[in-house]
Parts: sequence; structure tokens; C-alpha cells
Amino acid sequence: MRTKALTTLEELRRAVEPALDAALPPDAAWPATIHRAVRYSLFAGGKRIRPVLSLAAGEAAGGPRDEVLPLACAVEMIHTYSLIHDDLPAMDDDDLRRGKPTSHKVFGEGIAILAGDALLTRAFHLLSEMPPEWDETRLRRRVRALALLGEACGTTGLIGGQVEDLESEGQTIDAAALECLHRAKTGALLSACVRGGAILGGASETDLASLTRYAAAIGLAFQVVDDVLDATEDADTLGKTAGKDRTTGKATYVSLHGLDRAREMAASLGNEALDALAPLGSRGQRLAEIARLIVDRDS
Amino acid sequence: MRTKALTTLEELRRAVEPALDAALPPDAAWPATIHRAVRYSLFAGGKRIRPVLSLAAGEAAGGPRDEVLPLACAVEMIHTYSLIHDDLPAMDDDDLRRGKPTSHKVFGEGIAILAGDALLTRAFHLLSEMPPEWDETRLRRRVRALALLGEACGTTGLIGGQVEDLESEGQTIDAAALECLHRAKTGALLSACVRGGAILGGASETDLASLTRYAAAIGLAFQVVDDVLDATEDADTLGKTAGKDRTTGKATYVSLHGLDRAREMAASLGNEALDALAPLGSRGQRLAEIARLIVDRDS
Repeated sequence: MRTKALTTLEELRRAVEPALDAALPPDAAWPATIHRAVRYSLFAGGKRIRPVLSLAAGEAAGGPRDEVLPLACAVEMIHTYSLIHDDLPAMDDDDLRRGKPTSHKVFGEGIAILAGDALLTRAFHLLSEMPPEWDETRLRRRVRALALLGEACGTTGLIGGQVEDLESEGQTIDAAALECLHRAKTGALLSACVRGGAILGGASETDLASLTRYAAAIGLAFQVVDDVLDATEDADTLGKTAGKDRTTGKATYVSLHGLDRAREMAASLGNEALDALAPLGSRGQRLAEIARLIVDRDS
Repeated sequence: MRTKALTTLEELRRAVEPALDAALPPDAAWPATIHRAVRYSLFAGGKRIRPVLSLAAGEAAGGPRDEVLPLACAVEMIHTYSLIHDDLPAMDDDDLRRGKPTSHKVFGEGIAILAGDALLTRAFHLLSEMPPEWDETRLRRRVRALALLGEACGTTGLIGGQVEDLESEGQTIDAAALECLHRAKTGALLSACVRGGAILGGASETDLASLTRYAAAIGLAFQVVDDVLDATEDADTLGKTAGKDRTTGKATYVSLHGLDRAREMAASLGNEALDALAPLGSRGQRLAEIARLIVDRDS
């Protein structure tokens, strides 16, 4: 099972890398520093879970891959921008990400802030590039995916979650507040990956409803597993500082529910994701593999 | 002349304020801190030159104002995001903006970075909100304006200019490099305001070409006047730290060409802008008033 899931992931990821490369100016383009910084973080060995989810959702909807690739690139750019900004000294103050020094450690804080800004800007710009010869259906699908992504990245999504995360540090928050935080911080973007990919693939509203349930489950599962890994793995495996949640006194699924219950929650959310895919039949197979991978991963 | 220009500016600006207010969640919406921070900077007494330019360009093209208002809001959000990030300690390190403490002084660096991110995100999100009942022409115009804005804010525009600005501090740069920097840092967004407004207003390609020339001239004029003001006005009038360029050894139009020549350049660029408007006849009147105001302003 594990090997098959990795194969799916590899195949879809292989489609993402050249598209990401083509979506950005080369290293040496003016002004060179910012393009070096942007590429440093974007090609730092990320797992590409978000773009792979978009591509798999597009395929589940029956659409051609090329239709979804710009969204796949955009969500990875947005994920990378959020990591660069979250790692800054004024936020989580992390020196290590994916086993390499963080952007501000290499390029300084000013360029790191601008590299994040550049990735966020390019993500929306890339999706707004719709040639005049596109027909109306294509145009409308892209516009819908763009609006959905914009909402997911805003103050009720990605940014709101980071604000809450910043403000809850060292404070006692309950299970409901923690779920609310993570539905915003991790869940909103993951959901936009799946729903946006499905829309670009031409999904029916019925399929879209199933995929929305799937996305909500894997979004939360992703975060629960993150917390379990932070509590149990070492830095070498994670590629980032381990045990950080505990030392900073941050509320996590593990600190609130204990390790065993957190593991049970992850497994149960994984099953919920698989249930949601049932109406799609074999079209949901790759998404099912990704759900299993999210729950079973060790980094 | 001055009074009439102010009146135009006031009338268009009055249309922007409620639209900006409506485009953002209220202060108290979850998570409250970020919405307070966003509104603090967005309603800090900005001159609204960019949205006013968009509205005037849309009217010059003959389109209804409502069609241009979302762009007018988006460009002001983007301008404000760029100020918040530029003022950060890791960038220009400014404590004062528009006569008030800068965002990071009030909310801390973490929230200031996120407030900038939130404004940038909301700008693109706002423009991507296109109701399904819109006809194809309307849709295509909005998409074109969105792509144009995305490019103007990227690494060859706004962000590229800020990178160069950051890297040129304390270094000797020549007149050509300075112009290149400002065409990116100030010019690209001002040009997108004018061109985007014109496109949303349904401008012909001929009008658009005239307005593009107009935008290039006022973009540069704007920066030359900024440098003149920094060298001659006090902080009370400017609402920000004065004489900063000189004390930080930054290259400006005044340091490279002297005060008299810089003033001549500003006047000449103002005339170039008026020339570019000639083919539009009376439709270009408001844009002409704005050009005069940019050259004659004292803050």
C-alpha cells in the first residue's frame, strides 16, 4: 500500500516540478536576489502534497491535467510563502526548514519578507493569466477557482490561522479553539487545493460536495499527524526543529488529548476521508492513496 | 487651478472610502487583531491617489464608476501593504507614516507582516469575485485588469523595485539605474491603476495607448516630486520622517541632479503627461487635474 501511494505521489509530483520552474523567472533575471530567494525556498525539497492534491482532484473530476497545473503551482507557491513568513523571527523564529537554513537565515529578513510577498503575488498572477482565445466555460472555471483560493488565503483562512497561532502561544486554548485554528491555518488551503482542482477538472456539484467532505477530513488529519510527529520524531527525520511545540508550551492535539487519542483521531479522520470518496468509485482512488499517505507519513 | 483639482480629488475619494470599508471584514470579526491592524493602516489618512487615478481613467474611457471601484479598492490595499512591509525594521525601518506610528510600532512585527499579507491577498480576492451572472465582456475585462495588476505587483514591478531600493542603499547608482528602480517601485503600480481603470471602463486600444504614456510620465513625476519634498519639507508637512534619503545616503533625483534640475524634471514630466492626454480631449480633463496635483503637491 505504502509503495503504491508513493508511486502515485511521485508521478504527479514529477508533473509539478517543470511547471513550477517554468512559472518563475530564471535565477539570474532582474533583480537576481529575489529570484534566487524565491527559488531557494520553492525548490527546497517540499513534499508537494498540495499540488498533488489539486492534480488528483482534477483527475477525479475527469479533467485534463494541463487545466489544473497552474493551480497546482499556485498552491505550492502560497504554501511556500506562508512557510517563509511563519519562520521569520517575528513569528515562529525557526532556523531550519526541510533540513536547510530558513530563507531569512540565508538572505536576511528583508529579502525573506519580499520573497514571501513575491510568491503570493505570483500565485494570483499565474492564475489570472487567461489567454483571450479561451472559451467562456474555461474562463468561468478558472475565475471560480481563483476566488476560492483568494478566500482560503485570507483572514478567515491561512492568515487568520497564523494570527491565532501567534496569539495563542503560551496561552491555554481548548479543543474547539484548536480545531478552529487549524481549520483556518491548514484546512482552508488544503480544501482549496482539492475543490479548486475539482472545479478546473469540470466536477459536478455532487462530486464537489463529496470532495469538500474529503478535504475537510484530510485537512484536520494533516494537522493531527503533524502534532504527533512533532512529539515523537527527531529533527533529522522531520527536517525541522522537533519537540518545538512542547518547549514553547503550544497547545497541540497531543497536549490536549494525549498521544494515543491523537493517533486514533488521525486514523478516524483518514477513514472519514475515504468514506467521503465512496460515491466517486474508482475515480477517487488516487485521492484515497493520498489520504492514507497523509495519515501514515513519518515526516 | 489648485482648488479645482482638490475638488476632483475629493469627489472621487469620497466614492472610495465606503467601498474600501465594505470590502473588508469589520474590526471585530475573527480574528480581531488582524482586522484592526489592516484597518489601522488602510484608514490612516492616505491621499488615495491610486484609486482616484483608476476611477478617473475609467471615466475617461466612458465606463460606469461601479465597474472600476473594486480595482480602486484593490490598488489602495496593495499600496498600503507595500507601505506596511517597507516600513518594517528589516526594510526601511520607519516609525512614522502619515503622521502616525507605523503598523509594527502599534501591533508588533508579526502582526504587521500578516496585515500586509492580508491586504495583498484581499486585493486579489476582491478582484476575483465575479458573480456567475456577469456577461462574457465584463468577465474578460476584469480578468485582463487582474492579470495586469498581478504583473505590476511582482518581481519586475513593485517588489523588484523594493528589492533594488534595499540593495542600493549606501551604494552609488547612476541616473539610469535610479529611473529603472522607480519605474518598478512606483511606476508599475501607478500604470496598472490607470490602465486597469481604463480597461474596466471599456477603453479602445488607441485610448489605452495614450493613457499608458500618461501613466509612465506621472509615475516618474511622482517619484521626482517625492525626492524634492524629502529634501525640502519638514516632517510635520510630510507626515513621515523628512530628510531621510540624505541621512541614509540614498540616491535620489535631488542627489543625482540637484534640486533645481529635479524640479525642472518634475515640471517637464507633468507636461508630458498632459500631452499624452491630448487625443482624449475633454474626457482627459480629470486625469489632467490629477497630473497637475501630483507635480504641485507639498506632501
